[in-house]
Amino acid sequence: MPDPSIHAPSPARVFTESEKQALYDVIYARRDVRNEFRPEPIDEEALGRVLNAAHAAPSVGLSQPWNFILIRDTARRAEIKQAFLRANREAREMFPAERRTDYSALKVEGIEKAPLNICVTCNRSRGGEVVLGRTHNRDMDLYSTVCSVQNLWLAARAEGIGVGWVSIFHQSDLKRILGLPDHVAIVAYLCVGYISEMYERPELAVRRWANVADLRDVVLDETWNSSE
Amino acid sequence: MPDPSIHAPSPARVFTESEKQALYDVIYARRDVRNEFRPEPIDEEALGRVLNAAHAAPSVGLSQPWNFILIRDTARRAEIKQAFLRANREAREMFPAERRTDYSALKVEGIEKAPLNICVTCNRSRGGEVVLGRTHNRDMDLYSTVCSVQNLWLAARAEGIGVGWVSIFHQSDLKRILGLPDHVAIVAYLCVGYISEMYERPELAVRRWANVADLRDVVLDETWNSSE
Repeated sequence: MPDPSIHAPSPARVFTESEKQALYDVIYARRDVRNEFRPEPIDEEALGRVLNAAHAAPSVGLSQPWNFILIRDTARRAEIKQAFLRANREAREMFPAERRTDYSALKVEGIEKAPLNICVTCNRSRGGEVVLGRTHNRDMDLYSTVCSVQNLWLAARAEGIGVGWVSIFHQSDLKRILGLPDHVAIVAYLCVGYISEMYERPELAVRRWANVADLRDVVLDETWNSSE
Repeated sequence: MPDPSIHAPSPARVFTESEKQALYDVIYARRDVRNEFRPEPIDEEALGRVLNAAHAAPSVGLSQPWNFILIRDTARRAEIKQAFLRANREAREMFPAERRTDYSALKVEGIEKAPLNICVTCNRSRGGEVVLGRTHNRDMDLYSTVCSVQNLWLAARAEGIGVGWVSIFHQSDLKRILGLPDHVAIVAYLCVGYISEMYERPELAVRRWANVADLRDVVLDETWNSSE
């Protein structure tokens, strides 16, 4: 007979004040890194811990739809950099004329400077035809994959590893370069490398491109009672 | 003259082994909670810390597109529960006949049991017509919002607060009940409450609905060299 106790929850671990503080300190010290990458390779054990943390993310129906493609090859990263540059020229033109000079001055990727790139993908077929929790929102698998990115990012920060998310690509370019089949979507393209320095505040705020919002302006009570 | 040093990065904080371990312990002790919620309200200071952690998430072009709607009203939660039940009956019918009994036996929400629900939304107009980093992937704002959910989830776990993500809704039902305008999308509907007990492993694995994958099966080298 199966042991019925295996279906029972256990006492939940209580975290100490210093453990809570460590989590908050990592959360607040995480930045999108574009330029501060050091060239030395990531320690394999540290990388394993970071990927395991990503793999421990929540996923819809426990489908774990993610893959992590580790890209180190110099020629491949050069090709990806070209795809970025092409898209970024288009991006610049989308801004009003008066912002284009500022836009060009921003460094927004570390594809070749960081020693490791990680493409985080979502296999839209993982878990079969019907996935629990994905019946009414087909994009829940993409959202699960983003949760794994955020776990990866926090774990990397704690390991002294910076991460920058590059989104300025035509998905079709990256899919061709990485050989992705149709049913696999790119969720995040990450530049990854050790850092000794980083910005204390978001770099786009430091450079006055955008402002940090006040938490009070984004918390609402009961319903959408905002003028936005 | 502006001080040029404000554009310079600072020495990056180095996290100790015990701080790293605290982060990993929170990541691995996080679960999707459906049934273990205790009824007492969330301490306001703890809730503030959790929401601030969510608000510290990365966001595309520093657009911070999220809002957090705090829902405690009993009648409103009862109405939302009805919207869930309607969708969940449809969801059950989507599964093959032989899985429907197992599906019905799973508890997948704590809308009324948890004392607090948080609807995390994404304002698709935040940041203006053109947002840095969103030029080639219009869904980057949704992904930013998911990053805030994962920060919220981890912070809550450290505070002894369980979180369960409910996705089985028609988005139109929830938008009507919460009064959301067209340009605001629902990313996550979260049930939130203190917990004393929780599952050590993902509940869907404990109940043999799905299996936990091996990390080695989802890490790929350089390109998509998988048979999936």
